[in-house]
Amino acid sequence: CCALNRPRAKIAHVYRGTFMHSTQDTTLEIIEDALLGVDTVGKVSHLLHSPKKKKKKNVNDFHALLRCSEFFMPGMVDTHIHAPQYSYTGTAMDLPLLQWLNTYTFPVESRFKDLKFAHRVYTEVVKRTLKNGTTTACYFATIHTDASLLLGKIANDFGQRAFVGKVCMDRNKSDYKETTQECQKETCRFIAELLNKKYPLVKPVVTPRFAPSCTGDLLGQLGAIARKNNLHIQSHISENVDEVKLVKELFPESKSYTDVYHKYNLLTDKTVMAHGCHLTDEELTLFSETGASLSHCPNSNISLCSGLLNVRNVLKHKVKLGLGTDVAGGYSASMLDAVRRTLDTSKVLTIQNPKHQALTFDEVFRLATLGGSQALFLDDQTGNFEVGKDFDALRVNVAPPGGPIDLILCDKPKVGSGALYKGDDRNIVEVFVAGRKVVPFMEPAAE
Amino acid sequence: CCALNRPRAKIAHVYRGTFMHSTQDTTLEIIEDALLGVDTVGKVSHLLHSPKKKKKKNVNDFHALLRCSEFFMPGMVDTHIHAPQYSYTGTAMDLPLLQWLNTYTFPVESRFKDLKFAHRVYTEVVKRTLKNGTTTACYFATIHTDASLLLGKIANDFGQRAFVGKVCMDRNKSDYKETTQECQKETCRFIAELLNKKYPLVKPVVTPRFAPSCTGDLLGQLGAIARKNNLHIQSHISENVDEVKLVKELFPESKSYTDVYHKYNLLTDKTVMAHGCHLTDEELTLFSETGASLSHCPNSNISLCSGLLNVRNVLKHKVKLGLGTDVAGGYSASMLDAVRRTLDTSKVLTIQNPKHQALTFDEVFRLATLGGSQALFLDDQTGNFEVGKDFDALRVNVAPPGGPIDLILCDKPKVGSGALYKGDDRNIVEVFVAGRKVVPFMEPAAE
Ligand SMILES: [Zn+2]
Ligand SMILES: [Zn+2]
Repeated sequence: CCALNRPRAKIAHVYRGTFMHSTQDTTLEIIEDALLGVDTVGKVSHLLHSPKKKKKKNVNDFHALLRCSEFFMPGMVDTHIHAPQYSYTGTAMDLPLLQWLNTYTFPVESRFKDLKFAHRVYTEVVKRTLKNGTTTACYFATIHTDASLLLGKIANDFGQRAFVGKVCMDRNKSDYKETTQECQKETCRFIAELLNKKYPLVKPVVTPRFAPSCTGDLLGQLGAIARKNNLHIQSHISENVDEVKLVKELFPESKSYTDVYHKYNLLTDKTVMAHGCHLTDEELTLFSETGASLSHCPNSNISLCSGLLNVRNVLKHKVKLGLGTDVAGGYSASMLDAVRRTLDTSKVLTIQNPKHQALTFDEVFRLATLGGSQALFLDDQTGNFEVGKDFDALRVNVAPPGGPIDLILCDKPKVGSGALYKGDDRNIVEVFVAGRKVVPFMEPAAE
Repeated sequence: CCALNRPRAKIAHVYRGTFMHSTQDTTLEIIEDALLGVDTVGKVSHLLHSPKKKKKKNVNDFHALLRCSEFFMPGMVDTHIHAPQYSYTGTAMDLPLLQWLNTYTFPVESRFKDLKFAHRVYTEVVKRTLKNGTTTACYFATIHTDASLLLGKIANDFGQRAFVGKVCMDRNKSDYKETTQECQKETCRFIAELLNKKYPLVKPVVTPRFAPSCTGDLLGQLGAIARKNNLHIQSHISENVDEVKLVKELFPESKSYTDVYHKYNLLTDKTVMAHGCHLTDEELTLFSETGASLSHCPNSNISLCSGLLNVRNVLKHKVKLGLGTDVAGGYSASMLDAVRRTLDTSKVLTIQNPKHQALTFDEVFRLATLGGSQALFLDDQTGNFEVGKDFDALRVNVAPPGGPIDLILCDKPKVGSGALYKGDDRNIVEVFVAGRKVVPFMEPAAE
């Protein structure tokens, strides 16, 4: 109503303490004794350095003064997680991808036609990932539309920013699939019903499982649906060598795995593809040209012996990249684990080839936050503490009582890396999404 | 006094529930609904399968009946950990070994001449590792004899089984070293004073830091001291490529790095050497022939970009091998992390070479428990629940309130692997060493 005056929303909260975040220009910026304001619509209103010269009497304005062992960092963005698979994390790590899907995954995902079971698992996964500091999650659900809608409702109830995908597949060896027509129809219903809920932070994402389990027909229809509705798209690509071979057999007319998706209009600037371990430089160039992004899931890639993604090479190709847990190919639902495994994978590449320039801690911190928001085309809304973005934040206490860290030599600039290397959910004492405190948990709204 | 009658100590406790352990013949044995007795001197008196047919009225004999989400496993054996370095874990992961030692390690270790600082750090590390389920630790301390003795006292006070080594080095670029004569004299004093305490579970270990920081003279003297007193020996070997080159330069007369230690009588069946990433098959054969063992420290090896130990090849050479955290080359003081990183390293070797047979979860469980006890020549005392061994045990609750795991699909045999993949100290609800409950913590005995 007042666009001409561009009035700002009022300031609702001011936090004072240390803030760590990544910006367009700085891999990791640490601002000590800063003041950050959050307005009544949950956006960052200001971030000011060192208010030391301020008048003392303003101290009472601060709603929250961080302890010296605390800092704020942006909420982490899990760019790839399978919500139903959370039910068996850490218990099925002994098979390569294609056998793993048939043996463990499809039988469990089939159970999600049971909405009671879905409710239980989806509640656990949303609560667990929030506690772990995932303020934004890009979820695969299952082929079941109603259960997928339920996941959207639960994410909304607990206040998590999320993309939710009803999974589409019309070919595999099991009964866990739909016909091409069912896939198309149910995807349209899923999108319409989820959008109709008008959840402020939860959106649908078009989700072909991956090329080997989809016919060209289905891929083409999904590409058309995404284009028509200007929607996000997620899938898997080039995770392991056998899968790449299989795609070559199933889509002999395509030049590459990437080309399959490209052909069916599934490679857009709102596309995020998981893995990409075995992409060629040519394929990475196609990613870069289309603006499609990659989700790097190092725990999963190692656990299933899939491959080691060279993130340095991806970044050199100017492809957007975020991190993902890929539960339950990855056994951890924590983005802190994704940070550590990303560093590990990069260091392993250096062990193999000393000329490889390993990722630094600062770079990986950036991938887990700002990088993830870019990969999901959400960096106008989240990823750091830039003024005007939503306040998606973690209040980290390096050494809470009963926590996993004993703070002995307190070297301020390094405390952050210590917390991310050794910390866990006990160190994430509060979580905010769009300015709202979501951990400790809010009670879900009554029906 | 009664050797002829071989009387048994009385049974003090009986535990009923699920027990997981490794034996000489079985990689991982899971015994459900078993009864385990512990006698008054802390040893396992019996382990019986399924007592279902027992008379009901005996139920009151059970001192502890495990919940269905609980199991007992043997305490874990950390075969390589630097107690003083715990003070900066996770904050110094950006340099390769030789620079890392000079930049971070030597300055911090120098501070342990201050006994107050040593007391603080050593208390934290003993408590933290016990909470993490390390019932046996093989510690490097610093060059300071009195601080090293203090570490022995603290381990004894909290009831941890431990080897403690006063570190010896007489050459490096910093001031943090002793003369050859000081090293020799102080090592003798350290051994005599520590043995004199008659701590039942804490013993000295002869500890040359590693060949590059010791003259041949010093190595020879330490070999003689170990032989004369029939003591354990620990050091580092073949951790990274530059170090191997340096040893070749410093000891041109030796055929290999292993040969340096062998020449000075430092390779015995009571020797444990950390790392060994770059050992040749010939060197592994020398380990096998002498009975010396390796401590595999995968977190450290990846974090410092040192190398990837092929554990499968080590085992093929019949070299004893345990796992180590190598704090602070490794950033985690938890043996659960060592288990996970061992699996990762092995899977990475399979990614590189599909013919490599990755270690299984069961095999790595064995390395963390029985394997470690063998590596430290302690397998007559600890490592599993064999009758006659000390009861060194962890009571694991897979899903305690507020813990890191949501138990959804409860597939009994896989619950153990889930707990070890995803669990942390919150899942280790009680820790026993030689039958004594040491976590939750006992109060240290008054002076
Ligand atoms: Zn996935
Ligand atoms: Zn070491």
